[in-house]
Amino acid sequence: MSTATFGSICFDTGCFWKDGSNISKVNRPKEGKMFVKCAVNTNTQKPKKEVRIGVLGASGYTGSEIVRLLANHPHFGITLMTADKKAGQSIGSVFPHLVTQDLPDMVSVKDANFSDVDAVFCCLPHGTTQEIIKALPKGLKIVDLSADFRLQDISEYEEWYGQAHRAPDLQKEAVYGLTELLREEVKSARLVANPGCYPTSVQLPLVPLIKANLIEFRNIIIDAKSGVSGAGRGAKEANLYTEISEGIYSYGITRHRHVPEIEQGLSQAANSKITISFTPHLMPMNRGMQSTIYVEMAPGVTIDDLYHQLKISYEDEEFVVLLERGVVPRTHNVRGSNYCLMNVFPDRIPGRAIIVSVIDNLVKGASGQALQNLNGMMGYPENTGLLYLPLFP
Amino acid sequence: MSTATFGSICFDTGCFWKDGSNISKVNRPKEGKMFVKCAVNTNTQKPKKEVRIGVLGASGYTGSEIVRLLANHPHFGITLMTADKKAGQSIGSVFPHLVTQDLPDMVSVKDANFSDVDAVFCCLPHGTTQEIIKALPKGLKIVDLSADFRLQDISEYEEWYGQAHRAPDLQKEAVYGLTELLREEVKSARLVANPGCYPTSVQLPLVPLIKANLIEFRNIIIDAKSGVSGAGRGAKEANLYTEISEGIYSYGITRHRHVPEIEQGLSQAANSKITISFTPHLMPMNRGMQSTIYVEMAPGVTIDDLYHQLKISYEDEEFVVLLERGVVPRTHNVRGSNYCLMNVFPDRIPGRAIIVSVIDNLVKGASGQALQNLNGMMGYPENTGLLYLPLFP
Amino acid sequence: MSTATFGSICFDTGCFWKDGSNISKVNRPKEGKMFVKCAVNTNTQKPKKEVRIGVLGASGYTGSEIVRLLANHPHFGITLMTADKKAGQSIGSVFPHLVTQDLPDMVSVKDANFSDVDAVFCCLPHGTTQEIIKALPKGLKIVDLSADFRLQDISEYEEWYGQAHRAPDLQKEAVYGLTELLREEVKSARLVANPGCYPTSVQLPLVPLIKANLIEFRNIIIDAKSGVSGAGRGAKEANLYTEISEGIYSYGITRHRHVPEIEQGLSQAANSKITISFTPHLMPMNRGMQSTIYVEMAPGVTIDDLYHQLKISYEDEEFVVLLERGVVPRTHNVRGSNYCLMNVFPDRIPGRAIIVSVIDNLVKGASGQALQNLNGMMGYPENTGLLYLPLFP
Amino acid sequence: MSTATFGSICFDTGCFWKDGSNISKVNRPKEGKMFVKCAVNTNTQKPKKEVRIGVLGASGYTGSEIVRLLANHPHFGITLMTADKKAGQSIGSVFPHLVTQDLPDMVSVKDANFSDVDAVFCCLPHGTTQEIIKALPKGLKIVDLSADFRLQDISEYEEWYGQAHRAPDLQKEAVYGLTELLREEVKSARLVANPGCYPTSVQLPLVPLIKANLIEFRNIIIDAKSGVSGAGRGAKEANLYTEISEGIYSYGITRHRHVPEIEQGLSQAANSKITISFTPHLMPMNRGMQSTIYVEMAPGVTIDDLYHQLKISYEDEEFVVLLERGVVPRTHNVRGSNYCLMNVFPDRIPGRAIIVSVIDNLVKGASGQALQNLNGMMGYPENTGLLYLPLFP
Repeated sequence: MSTATFGSICFDTGCFWKDGSNISKVNRPKEGKMFVKCAVNTNTQKPKKEVRIGVLGASGYTGSEIVRLLANHPHFGITLMTADKKAGQSIGSVFPHLVTQDLPDMVSVKDANFSDVDAVFCCLPHGTTQEIIKALPKGLKIVDLSADFRLQDISEYEEWYGQAHRAPDLQKEAVYGLTELLREEVKSARLVANPGCYPTSVQLPLVPLIKANLIEFRNIIIDAKSGVSGAGRGAKEANLYTEISEGIYSYGITRHRHVPEIEQGLSQAANSKITISFTPHLMPMNRGMQSTIYVEMAPGVTIDDLYHQLKISYEDEEFVVLLERGVVPRTHNVRGSNYCLMNVFPDRIPGRAIIVSVIDNLVKGASGQALQNLNGMMGYPENTGLLYLPLFP
Repeated sequence: MSTATFGSICFDTGCFWKDGSNISKVNRPKEGKMFVKCAVNTNTQKPKKEVRIGVLGASGYTGSEIVRLLANHPHFGITLMTADKKAGQSIGSVFPHLVTQDLPDMVSVKDANFSDVDAVFCCLPHGTTQEIIKALPKGLKIVDLSADFRLQDISEYEEWYGQAHRAPDLQKEAVYGLTELLREEVKSARLVANPGCYPTSVQLPLVPLIKANLIEFRNIIIDAKSGVSGAGRGAKEANLYTEISEGIYSYGITRHRHVPEIEQGLSQAANSKITISFTPHLMPMNRGMQSTIYVEMAPGVTIDDLYHQLKISYEDEEFVVLLERGVVPRTHNVRGSNYCLMNVFPDRIPGRAIIVSVIDNLVKGASGQALQNLNGMMGYPENTGLLYLPLFP
Repeated sequence: MSTATFGSICFDTGCFWKDGSNISKVNRPKEGKMFVKCAVNTNTQKPKKEVRIGVLGASGYTGSEIVRLLANHPHFGITLMTADKKAGQSIGSVFPHLVTQDLPDMVSVKDANFSDVDAVFCCLPHGTTQEIIKALPKGLKIVDLSADFRLQDISEYEEWYGQAHRAPDLQKEAVYGLTELLREEVKSARLVANPGCYPTSVQLPLVPLIKANLIEFRNIIIDAKSGVSGAGRGAKEANLYTEISEGIYSYGITRHRHVPEIEQGLSQAANSKITISFTPHLMPMNRGMQSTIYVEMAPGVTIDDLYHQLKISYEDEEFVVLLERGVVPRTHNVRGSNYCLMNVFPDRIPGRAIIVSVIDNLVKGASGQALQNLNGMMGYPENTGLLYLPLFP
Repeated sequence: MSTATFGSICFDTGCFWKDGSNISKVNRPKEGKMFVKCAVNTNTQKPKKEVRIGVLGASGYTGSEIVRLLANHPHFGITLMTADKKAGQSIGSVFPHLVTQDLPDMVSVKDANFSDVDAVFCCLPHGTTQEIIKALPKGLKIVDLSADFRLQDISEYEEWYGQAHRAPDLQKEAVYGLTELLREEVKSARLVANPGCYPTSVQLPLVPLIKANLIEFRNIIIDAKSGVSGAGRGAKEANLYTEISEGIYSYGITRHRHVPEIEQGLSQAANSKITISFTPHLMPMNRGMQSTIYVEMAPGVTIDDLYHQLKISYEDEEFVVLLERGVVPRTHNVRGSNYCLMNVFPDRIPGRAIIVSVIDNLVKGASGQALQNLNGMMGYPENTGLLYLPLFP
């Protein structure tokens, strides 16, 4: 890591315990405090990063994940953080795991000065995001992690979110940021709508198979399982430890807001309207998402065909990994990383296949993919700052 | 991250979905499989790293953690991995979260070729380690993560481990690798005995306070709590999910093998024999360790004095962080990272203090500290490749 | 609870702290230990229970669960416990949560004396069970919790378990103990094959719907999720806390041994061979099982029809509860209890339905249903000793 | 269980699948819905219970736990449930695990009719409780689970709770309900202040040892660990799954409100003011509490003396169990039950001892002990309805 180049270098020049003879005379507390010091000189002068980043909505989990990922990024440096309810606070007081980072205090978004910002990650709730992004300086590159610009059909947004779209012109400009599938468009975009976590885990395996006409478009059944961090940091009874741990829960059966986003992506791939069955389940775990997808293969297609298609689709991708035949993807094996692992299995019922795809919902399903997108938008290699391996156990 | 410099760079040259007209003609499965490809050219040529690393005992949790940490290290590259029971297997088959890494297959330690290795991390069980290290080429730098070289008094090793020490000469040479306290010795060492997790979490706060005569040497009571990964990956009924989750357990009351190591460190700091009370508790969590330490302050000493001492001891350290007054360290906030967070609190009983110290037992308590040590031994900045932020939530 | 009638009754007759004046004179430890006593007289004479129970394989989780459930049973008393590897040990040493129970020590099954036993729960592993049961006295009532007598077609047993059936005559006699569906047969049975956990959670909702021709027999897709206790207490790396917690895992895709049992039950209901899609997932939780079942409704059938059928099928059942429309069953809400909660939901895809069914895999999925069966076999009300409410949180 | 006497008895009189010939003619959905029924006649007439119980504050965890425990109580029946914010709702809608119970809907406490109530469990938050209890009919027996009547010294209440005591006369009347230590007083009480969870786990082992002068009164250090359910069901960010799981946290160091309650109990036992060191830790588990207590033994006292004292203090108690020498109590082994397990261990430091005590914070630490108390107050055996064994795993 080039962090070494700006990290501290420790010139240890003689700690007090090197010289036992000195110890007896130090620190007789009663007679005037005399303290011994055991630290090292550190060069903490950090070089300026080329790209100045703003994080809007830094007090949520996707915001803090952006901060975590950028900590070791060689080119992106955070110069602005907003959080309306936590304005005036340091990131370390809101997220103590970030206490070691030297970052600007959070400000209210209305007080934010965008003059020294080149690009923003927008981690705000849907609904408010459209107007805020509309008001940003036009020169900014934007990756929006909310759902506000994901649905190209504005009427669909209104149907699922119960309110009129407030920035229809921006919607036309927005590029859907599923990097592996729309890489060139992302690179030249100004505003990227970062995909939802479920849609990412579903579209990565299904779009190539649909494009290649290997599976039927009907009766695609998605049984999805997610960790709790996807629900955010808001205080809700339903997400208390006591309510979540040691049990599972199917929520939003048929009504989850990621449905239209998934159907949009699959329908575009199919050039035909696809209606899916989608049942999300909440798991007693922080991070991780699995989509278990049940499909009918097109006539004459075999599991080998599916496997082969996914192999050639993704063999040169950094972050999408088709496992060896028979190996089952596990969410444990992507925790904290930007990888998507997938595989395809024969079903007992002839002609059917089972596809399993796993991601970390906060990384590839949110902040990691957002960084992947911004890397491309700013002209850097897509994987810059993203090669963290999964944390296991 | 300089990973960018050796990472893949994605030249996307036209995925099939860019050209809708092509799609209709691809893949009519019945008429000869024709597959579409949607991948990018990737330059995967990695530059050679300067330092060639061997990992002995790569199939355990500390071994896999070394691999995780080295994945982004700019100077250290793994060229040898041993695991007797898994010889011939790839790391990805033993630890699927490492499946993306291009590493040599594991070999039995007796078949290992050390000719292209500059340094080793030894992650083997205690007992067998002494003889294996004794047999290594003398030119190798070694960081041993077992307990085999931690106790300077060989008779104490025999008492606590129930067997004779098999490499007493090496014991004399071994340097105890609590970096912050013995930095210079570590830098010039050939063989470093990496501290245990509990001893790391206890000595970091206590040694400076003892050195400075701020606390009494008697009645130091340590109530320690650890995640389960410290127990390793061996299949034991006691460590099954069902036996661990949703409950806690005090194990090894007064008899834990980390006791002599802690007493050795504190006694050396005090220049006088210290006997501690030490009770470890197993927590239902993977990673994390907290030592809650109850001490009597020396006459006239105040909490402010303790705080001030710790502040000057560690204010320039990268990985040891004294929190602001009143802020309680939490294991959540070091997960996956090399940090030690600590703080000191007044007790209700006058004259007493409570010290809380947290680490990730697998990182600062094992593999992270090992890398910190080897960085120093090889002449690199101590924090090289170690600036991962904690993973939260 | 009539436990009161045989429980201890506490006649408190003057604890030492009632009389402060006495305290000063007690306990001067140096001068002869004189201790104060602060306990109560207890009548621990338990009445004999009518039915004498043997638990074969008492050292596993289903065995210990039998002990837990019988602790307050008014008619069944345990007189024999076997556990070959733990022979000679008390149940409290093997399962400390049962330390308060006054039970016979465990013996090896070959040393067991069945002369004072009226009925047995057989909690042994499959494979060995057939011969052991064959050798039992013919007068015993038996509920077998293994898989050894569940498959009526012996060739199917051999195919899925890889060995010949060793008691084909007993197989003919064995009654499949899904109580709600085969109540009368169970009552008159001598040997009951207790259903597997997955088959219980799947057949309870599906059999009535299939019987009533409300759903198609094809393309029944079952995405099942289970807690870890179903894997038993054997020491396996795969079931360590560190390998299970904070992640999920699809195991045995298409190959799980509960498949033939489920297909047997559904096919009998349909009077036609049904092949299912079945994918079990391991969840980071101790207890609980959910089957999310995706079905096609028969032409013209509506969700209301499914709901109505389940309602009339189960409205008078004690342990099977159809929730109010729209309420999603959660495993949290059956933990530790013998209940099965279920409900049916419309799918987004017209003509399809989603059925959710939850149980505690160790209770309704194993030991609770076994007790329910034995209650019936012995002529007692089915719910005797089984009305524990779920433990939440 | 006498539940059998009022439970349902299932007379199965011919389910449709007994007669395959009937099946073909049922349910041709298109031609008028004709459904088959597969249920049994059930006698659900429950006998009236002698004692009519009100639960004030039924929408919290201690309230729901009262409901769970009373479900099988032979003499106590719930006739009133209050919950101001959930008035008008059924218990099953607020706590779905209780959906099978036939209970009155919840009402606001101001609308409660106490005329058909003999005794109440008061599960309201501290602060509001005093006035509500003051307004209750004088003929009611009351067990108050809040902290409002635990501190006999009203000025101490004001100091720790920051408000004046509003029912000082009732305070004089209130009996502190640590049953094992104050059994006779509890039996004759009208108002019992149910002890806090931490104070229960600490006083049970320490009071007999202090009474017997076996331990020093100074430097009693209590390192306590609790499951999250003790924090209640209120929606707080700090108690979200994501904030709690996979980590531990020392909260309320030296300032926890259970401190004065513990000091009150120990000081009364000692006839001298005792100041304790008390540090509570929040664990990633729902239920369970452990106090690890570090004490100095009185001169000449041995571990055997402590063990012997605890043995004679509790050998005839139903719910307090001193384990065999050397066996460590685990919270896993009391989950869901009213037991307190304890043991005493020698410390490495001569003259010191380590005491471990575990309970389920919601049962023996709250609702179970409350029922134990009310049993006594109403003249029933203390253990009535409380002999649930722990749920493990």
